Amino acid sequence: MKPTQLQTKSGFKNLLNGFFAIFAVCICSVANAADPLASWNEGPAKKVILEFVAAVTNQSGKDYVPPAERIAVFDNDGTLWVEYPMYTQALFAFDRVKALAPQHPEWKTTQPFKGVLEGDMKAVGATGIKGLMQIIMATHSGMTAAEFEQEVANWLATTKQSKFNRLYTELVYQPQLELLAYLRASGFKTFIVSGGGIAFMRPISEKTYGIPPEQVVGSSVVAEFQMKDGKPALVRMPKIDFINDKAGKPVGIYEHIGRRPILAFGNSDSDIQMIEYTMAGEGRRLGLFVHHTDADREYAYDRKSHVGKLDKALDEAEANVWIIVSMKDDWNSVFPAR
Amino acid sequence: MKPTQLQTKSGFKNLLNGFFAIFAVCICSVANAADPLASWNEGPAKKVILEFVAAVTNQSGKDYVPPAERIAVFDNDGTLWVEYPMYTQALFAFDRVKALAPQHPEWKTTQPFKGVLEGDMKAVGATGIKGLMQIIMATHSGMTAAEFEQEVANWLATTKQSKFNRLYTELVYQPQLELLAYLRASGFKTFIVSGGGIAFMRPISEKTYGIPPEQVVGSSVVAEFQMKDGKPALVRMPKIDFINDKAGKPVGIYEHIGRRPILAFGNSDSDIQMIEYTMAGEGRRLGLFVHHTDADREYAYDRKSHVGKLDKALDEAEANVWIIVSMKDDWNSVFPAR
Repeated sequence: MKPTQLQTKSGFKNLLNGFFAIFAVCICSVANAADPLASWNEGPAKKVILEFVAAVTNQSGKDYVPPAERIAVFDNDGTLWVEYPMYTQALFAFDRVKALAPQHPEWKTTQPFKGVLEGDMKAVGATGIKGLMQIIMATHSGMTAAEFEQEVANWLATTKQSKFNRLYTELVYQPQLELLAYLRASGFKTFIVSGGGIAFMRPISEKTYGIPPEQVVGSSVVAEFQMKDGKPALVRMPKIDFINDKAGKPVGIYEHIGRRPILAFGNSDSDIQMIEYTMAGEGRRLGLFVHHTDADREYAYDRKSHVGKLDKALDEAEANVWIIVSMKDDWNSVFPAR
Repeated sequence: MKPTQLQTKSGFKNLLNGFFAIFAVCICSVANAADPLASWNEGPAKKVILEFVAAVTNQSGKDYVPPAERIAVFDNDGTLWVEYPMYTQALFAFDRVKALAPQHPEWKTTQPFKGVLEGDMKAVGATGIKGLMQIIMATHSGMTAAEFEQEVANWLATTKQSKFNRLYTELVYQPQLELLAYLRASGFKTFIVSGGGIAFMRPISEKTYGIPPEQVVGSSVVAEFQMKDGKPALVRMPKIDFINDKAGKPVGIYEHIGRRPILAFGNSDSDIQMIEYTMAGEGRRLGLFVHHTDADREYAYDRKSHVGKLDKALDEAEANVWIIVSMKDDWNSVFPAR
């Protein structure tokens, strides 16, 4: 073989390799562009979601659901954003206790406030649900709705999560952002249905999830219409109005949405009733739970966790035909890129 | 002039007349097609609505409001449909009392039920708010949400209003249907905010007004999540949850919508707080009241009416810069054509 021939062949081979490389990049880009759930690994969870959406949007199929009835509900803590090692709203409440402490000298000697100020979570925990309510009432009421919204927005814009050193609004799950967008693109209306405070999520729900405030359902305190400085205002009162958790979730859905969802996504036993209620309707339904199985990229917790306990829902998954989504196996990325 | 000339001229004149007639028809059709509020007479009310919508949708203007914040709220009884001489929901409740009476022999001798069964509205009225609540509890609870929805839908599909001999869902105001559609076409999200029962309006809100159930705010009874015949269900309990009236309306807006509306439309003093709250926000706002001034085409009532009393709102219209819409003067049609 003459050198020129070799060179030519080699040149051609390089050209060919280059071509295939470019071709491969193209294929890959096309695949990504066409995959609305790119952060979901190919597997049973992704498959069931895609099949469900295809079925309910297929006008000539037996499972077709008109757009107006395509209601999808998502729990928030642990389903859309990080909840471990402590619910974001509880951390907000603790920070508010610290900020308000100078106006409450008695808190230095009274639980659960003493515990919060001293960082003694065991003492706070010992006061139980009653103590927690005292903290919520002291930090979530006594101001106008607008003032509270501003407090929440400021705190979320400046406070970083301990493990990841990122804002809580950045610690949302990328695969879920894709799923929310995919559902909306498929004619669904997406709602948050959370045990957390409705007024705590609303200031960030639109920007963070593309879910407007009117599509957020959550726990609430009683509000009163009052004249403040001669102007009409809504004042948050130190009284629980509604706890949107466990059996409260279907009730919250009834009051706020007035239709039974066809898809529900949670992550803990507190979401069982919401998902049962969703799946008990007629026609095709889908219920899913996030299982936190990824200690490296996020956290691993389930049956014995102090937050987001997932126990009964795991045991009953098969009988109830709901889907357990493993963070480790089903998601190829967890958070949005920085 | 020769006959032929005359004929020709006459023919030409006819042709010309015909042409102008056709031209006039065209102009007229174009004007109608272009007028989103065709059932509103030209006048101050129509003018202020058109100017308001133009201002908040003009991206380069100082009054621009992004679509997400274009929230419009409408009272229902007397604002969107007929409320005279008695609120539709009260008539439904009375009919339910009659239907349920065989199962309640004690009602024959107990007020307010005795009054309802005997058609003695004076006796019913004498039992006051407590009696009314007894009637509501007896007729609006003790069944599942789905069962109640069916009851309401059946009743509204078959019961005709006394004066007009038409279904209540046909006695909606044509100018308001046009306004709702016009607002939505202008990027608004339209809500019902009514003192009536949320579950009474939702079965018909979408078909009647184009307002989906999740955009209906109203009074409610407590609901409970229960297993019924082994299936999860929501059961309506004999206990008031929330009265969405007067000062309750801004509270209902806060809980359900979570944003302050920029346009509010009512028809009675019960809507004052909702409209005050709407207008107290920053930027351009619009508040309106329907004034029932048309005894011929609908009804005429205001300051001393037993339903939809409009008194203080009339006196304070100028000071509060809200608009009084006269049914007689501002609307050229009242109901949709049969």
